[in-house]
Amino acid sequence: MKIYGDSISGNCLKVKWVADSLGLSYDWIETDILKSESRTAEFLALNPAGQVPAVILDDGRPLAQSNAIILHLAEGSALIPADAYERAKMLEWMFWEQYSHEPYVAVARFHVRYLGRAVADLESRIVERGAAALQRLEDGLAAAPFLVGACVSLADVALVAYTRVAHEGGFELGPYPRVQAWIARVEAALKIA
Amino acid sequence: MKIYGDSISGNCLKVKWVADSLGLSYDWIETDILKSESRTAEFLALNPAGQVPAVILDDGRPLAQSNAIILHLAEGSALIPADAYERAKMLEWMFWEQYSHEPYVAVARFHVRYLGRAVADLESRIVERGAAALQRLEDGLAAAPFLVGACVSLADVALVAYTRVAHEGGFELGPYPRVQAWIARVEAALKIA
Repeated sequence: MKIYGDSISGNCLKVKWVADSLGLSYDWIETDILKSESRTAEFLALNPAGQVPAVILDDGRPLAQSNAIILHLAEGSALIPADAYERAKMLEWMFWEQYSHEPYVAVARFHVRYLGRAVADLESRIVERGAAALQRLEDGLAAAPFLVGACVSLADVALVAYTRVAHEGGFELGPYPRVQAWIARVEAALKIA
Repeated sequence: MKIYGDSISGNCLKVKWVADSLGLSYDWIETDILKSESRTAEFLALNPAGQVPAVILDDGRPLAQSNAIILHLAEGSALIPADAYERAKMLEWMFWEQYSHEPYVAVARFHVRYLGRAVADLESRIVERGAAALQRLEDGLAAAPFLVGACVSLADVALVAYTRVAHEGGFELGPYPRVQAWIARVEAALKIA
């Protein structure tokens, strides 16, 4: 498999972590989004949406969207619960991540850390919705060590990617102690640090 | 099953269409987002994210996120391809829908049709990204009648929900003839009109 990814992107790291966790072999093709390397004609032929990550599977077929890729790679593994309801809750978290977490927590970090904007200059809706997403995570971790019960799943992979670097966008994690402890648990389970 | 949904929401209609298509019985509990009925204490106990649709399954357990719900309801049905790669491509479209289509095409429609804003007053990024999403769909339909090959799948359900009402947000579909023909095919396949 070839993984086209930018190492600064949590979405891309999700794919790396899952591949590493499952012992899959791959070539990582560093694709610099700050240099628009995901908008070249060559890249757009691979993923017309112009977004990383994108992969070329061993049979030569392409696949994009971080969460779709990790669902495909992890099919049949312990990273996807066997129980149908737990699997559905995992997907609930993963769609929520792309709609209600990433556009705020990841976007704030990108603006601050990579575009050099001051935290104070972020749009208020980004700051407010990012904080709401972190609170939602804090609440969601009240009953169990991982987002879907007792074991790490792709829901944790998807949500930890930008939560662990949320402070780089101005979101300090002090008010979210359960989130902090969960990050450490997920990092240990996935052997990332 | 109980479906909490607002009939004006394409995300909610996805759940209704899949349930109807599969012959599932349900009670529809109309939940008016314009009256903040998805932010009451009662509703937040069901879905802490405060978003419709949300369902209570027959065993009493809740589930949210439109695409997670339809994936759960349709498990084992013809709406989900049996082939692993086609299933992954379906998920790619579904995650793309929530990240790169709904926040522009659906949001424009909500502002124009339900909040009474003029099309000319929409943020330019919403207009530009919505048009880009429609072009991406047009391109994606060049090779096959449905988004993932020869048969209707949940990718079509997810994408048709707001594409069929895109004009209500100022996105005329004239420049996208394949999208127009596809909408008619999906509506016929799902028996909606």
